[in-house]
Order: sequence, then structure tokens, then C-alpha cells
Amino acid sequence: MKTIRASIIGFGAVGQGVAKVILSKSEYLNDMGLDLKVVAVADSRTATIDENGLDLPAVLARKAEQGSVGPENISGTEIIKTVEHDLVIEITPTNIDDGGVGLGNMVAAFERGMDVVTSNKGPLALKYCELEEMANKSGSQFKFEATVGGAMPIINLASETLAGNKILSMEGILNGTCNYILCRMMEEHAPYDQMVAEAQELGIAETDPTYDVEGIDTACKLVILANAIFGMNATYKDVSVTGITKITPEALLLAQNNGYDVKLIGEVNGSKINVSPKLVPKDNPLAVGGTLNVASLQTDISGPITITGRGAGSIETASAILSDIISIYKD
Amino acid sequence: MKTIRASIIGFGAVGQGVAKVILSKSEYLNDMGLDLKVVAVADSRTATIDENGLDLPAVLARKAEQGSVGPENISGTEIIKTVEHDLVIEITPTNIDDGGVGLGNMVAAFERGMDVVTSNKGPLALKYCELEEMANKSGSQFKFEATVGGAMPIINLASETLAGNKILSMEGILNGTCNYILCRMMEEHAPYDQMVAEAQELGIAETDPTYDVEGIDTACKLVILANAIFGMNATYKDVSVTGITKITPEALLLAQNNGYDVKLIGEVNGSKINVSPKLVPKDNPLAVGGTLNVASLQTDISGPITITGRGAGSIETASAILSDIISIYKD
Repeated sequence: MKTIRASIIGFGAVGQGVAKVILSKSEYLNDMGLDLKVVAVADSRTATIDENGLDLPAVLARKAEQGSVGPENISGTEIIKTVEHDLVIEITPTNIDDGGVGLGNMVAAFERGMDVVTSNKGPLALKYCELEEMANKSGSQFKFEATVGGAMPIINLASETLAGNKILSMEGILNGTCNYILCRMMEEHAPYDQMVAEAQELGIAETDPTYDVEGIDTACKLVILANAIFGMNATYKDVSVTGITKITPEALLLAQNNGYDVKLIGEVNGSKINVSPKLVPKDNPLAVGGTLNVASLQTDISGPITITGRGAGSIETASAILSDIISIYKD
Repeated sequence: MKTIRASIIGFGAVGQGVAKVILSKSEYLNDMGLDLKVVAVADSRTATIDENGLDLPAVLARKAEQGSVGPENISGTEIIKTVEHDLVIEITPTNIDDGGVGLGNMVAAFERGMDVVTSNKGPLALKYCELEEMANKSGSQFKFEATVGGAMPIINLASETLAGNKILSMEGILNGTCNYILCRMMEEHAPYDQMVAEAQELGIAETDPTYDVEGIDTACKLVILANAIFGMNATYKDVSVTGITKITPEALLLAQNNGYDVKLIGEVNGSKINVSPKLVPKDNPLAVGGTLNVASLQTDISGPITITGRGAGSIETASAILSDIISIYKD
């Protein structure tokens, strides 16, 4: 049995999802020869540490009841720098201005030669190449399937499952909130503001939906794909971004009457990285409904390959983190 | 550099596609540390052998000009039994009555401890468990992504990319010919016979389309998935099969007016393996057009994951064979 000592840094919905998935899959991991022991959990204010392995159900209960994991007053970054472990599961919130605490956490982990699995887009959208280089230099594994498309395994699909193929281009729907709003506008012939309000009521859109509806979230994910799949040296400023806020019900009706959907499409094609609303034929694999994410890869010998899955959800995102952990440590 | 000595047994469209892909990807494989040397090629009547590695462009040219690979009068099975090599690429035609020569070829390869990569559904639809057991016993690798869905990497997606997930059920369109006929019937409000004739003219349907339109091809693929993904001990006789020959334009119109497509859906659910025409909502990821294949997996923690790709085509099928070869030999 191989023991992996991990920290979970960031304990919001996804962090708690990771803890739940680790608990529910412990037997499955054992059968694979892996003993995944969480030795530290940090939220934004407090932390809890046990070098023999934390009682995760108790940590989850304390977070639910008291709003914090307590009792230690130590930051996630300090945990990475001082607690002996192998793997940092970095799930602090995305910050695309300066990478936020996530960037410092990743750097601290690589400086100690630790592996990092993350769902945090910010550091990757800003400093992908620097982080990859640091990881390589220190012999650390660095995996980030959960940063793009939630449960939809686009990065591992392109880089592992489709081994032998050259990926020529990619287009997809990488933001479920926008897809939901556009689908509902089309179904109800309703204006943008009304459907944003509906999405907010349902918890699908944030109180401030800017990050999603302006295409910023999609752009961050594209930068990660451009680097990870296409080997580009791209950052957020290389993306041309148009959101969905100007789309009218009349435009959608016109599209619909001609057999098209309107989708917020992100694409990487040659050196071009672009987010904008596009017409998609209704029988095209990209024309998925609801909050689904979808990505279509053009390959040299397999032709087009399209994958669809839930782009959000704490357990779904945690599933991508678990797959990354398994791919690092499985013999 | 790791040298892999391979035979290509069966040299129809897919066999020739494999030869072309090996040629076009030799540099790519070299960069990966792999030297894939084809030491024997056999078609149904003749063969050619060179233990130092065949001149594949010459073999392809001879096949194109003379209709055979010549000059040897030795069967594929004899090659497997007598020529020193590591990997049998088994691409003889599918025979679901008794497995055809493919079954004997696989057995012969495993008896010598050789690895097998195949696109041949027959032996797997009839003797999956026996073949897996033989391969395990002899330490052989046995991969068959190309048997299901052409370029669509459903088997490796489920067993590798989605590691950590339990796959609960699967449904999909696994036969492009049926999908083409149904899509065209719906578009043209035309009867079945007329659209079969069109598909035959375009080379999408065989002169005798029974194997496709009666659901037999889909059933064979389901058996392989039931065994490979769900660990069932299934054979062809366990599948309940209904084809598309009884579908009328009136039924399709009724579906269409209610927002549905009609698709020939194969599914594995619990112990049930079933092929039959089904209603699919038009915005469901399964509602793909043309000759595309699609498979949707229900998973415990990732939710539904759907993958779409070209289900046929010699280069596309060869791409799945190449991915299998890489996954066996890549360090």
C-alpha cells in the first residue's frame, strides 16, 4: 500500500466535495494500492492538522456547524511550508487579477517538491508556463483537470486517451451559466435580464454574474487549454473576449427559425484564442442544452472528437481532482 | 529506443489505414521512444515478411496495384505461429457466427505470449472472458478500442480517463449507418427503403445492410462494452435486439413535432443489454446527426459524460489502434 499524505487548501463547496469523495472512495483507492491520508485542511480563516490523518467526517461536520474548520490559526500557505506531506489539493477561489493566494500556494508546494492538484484557474490563466517550469524543475507532478469543464475530462482526454493524435483545434462551451441563460432565452423568447434573474434565483448564476456572462471564465479556461493541449505560451491577455450580454431574443428567434442554436463558444485555432457567441446547427454535437459543458477537438487522424459533461457542481469537480490524484499515484 | 516488432493480419481498408498511420506517425513514435517495425503483413490470400521491417509504402503500392500483398503463400495464423514478433495487429473481418479466423489468430498470439490490438468484434462478442483469461495467463496485453465506435475512445475513456468513477450505465449510438438512415428519413420525410438505397449509393450502407440495420453490429459492440467496462460475463445471445427496419416516416414526424429524434440506442443498464429505436430529446447530447457515433456514461461522481466521434473510416479506426499500441508500450 502506497501512503499519500495530502492537504486540502480551501474548504468551500469544492473542498468539502473533495473530502466527501475521498471518504466515499477510500476502499476503491485501497483496492488500487493507495492510502490517501488528509493531514491538513485549511479554509480562508482557520485550519486543522493531524499528521496521522484527520477525521474527515468530524472536519466536515465542524465546517457545516461552525462555518470554519478550526481550531488552528495557521494559513494554507504556512501549512504547505511546514507540514510534512506529499500532495497539495489547492482549491482556493480563482483570482485572475494576480492569481490570489493560490499562486503563492502552488509556488510554495513546488519549492518543497510537492505535487499539486488544483481546480483554481487564476494562477494557470496568468502564469501557466512559469508554474509548469517550476513543477518540472522540482520533479513535482502538476495536474489541473478540474480547472476546465468540471467533470468533463477534456485535458486528460486530449493528452492521454487520444495519444497518437495531433490536436489541430478546439471549440466548446466551457461555461454552464451562459449556456443555461441562452437556452432559456431561446425557449421562452425572453430577454437577457429576465433569464439572468431566473438563473440567479436557481443558484446557477452568481449575484454578480459578470465573470461568467462577460466571457471571462471561458477565457481563463481557454488559456489553460491553449497551454496544456496546444503547447502555446498564452496568458489571459491573449484572448479576444465577447460575452452574451448584448444578445436579444429576436436574434435567437432568427437563429432558431434557421435551425441554429446560439452558444457562447470558446475556441483555440492556430494562434487565435477567442470567446464569442456563435451560431451552432441544432444537430451538431456542440448544441447541448442546460448547464452542460462540451468541447470538440479536431484531430489529425481521429477526426472530430466531442466530449460533454457537467461543468460545475462540487462532487463533479471533486471527481476530476480524484482522477488526477489517481493518475499521479497509480502504478 | 524500444523496438516493437508487429504483424498486420488483415489488409483491407482498415489494415491499409493502420499501415498509413504507422508511416505518418513514425517520427511521433520515435519522439516517444518507440520504434514500431512491421515485420509481416497478411491479407486473405497472400503475405509478405521481412524480419528487418517491411517497406510499407511498397506493400501498400503492391496491394493497390495487384490486389494482394504477395509474394508469400502463408496464412496470417501461420505468421503468428512462426515469425518472431511482439505484437499482432488483428484486423481480419468480423464474423459473429464462430469468430472467424480472428479468433484463432488471437488464441495463437496469446499462446506465444504476444500482445494483440484488434478492431475485430467477432471473437470479443463471442469469447470475451476466455480471451481475457488467456491474455492474463500468458502476460499478454490485449486492447480493442477500435472494435467499438471507431475513433470514439469510449473504452479507454471509461477505464482510464474516468478513473475514480464507478460507471453505472451506458447508452449510445454505436452504428453510423443506422444513424444516417434515420436522420435522412426525418429530414426528407422519406420511407426507410428509399434512404437505405441512398446510403448504399453513398457507400454508407453495405449492399446487404442486414448486419447494421437489424441492430446486430450495435449488439456486438454492446457485448464488448458490457464486458470491458461493466465486468459482465456477456455474450451476443444475452442482448435483446430490435433494428430500424420497421420505422415509418409517420412515426418520425410525430417524434419531430414533439421535439424528439428517433435513434437506434444501445444500452447497458444493470444486467440488461438492449438495442432498440428510442425517442431522444433534440437537445440531448445523444441527439447527434449524420454517421456520428455517441456514447453516454452515467457515473457515480462525475454525473453523465458523453463522447462523440466518427464511428467508421479506415484512418479513424486506425487511430484507435495506434492509441492502444501507444498505451501498451509507452513508458
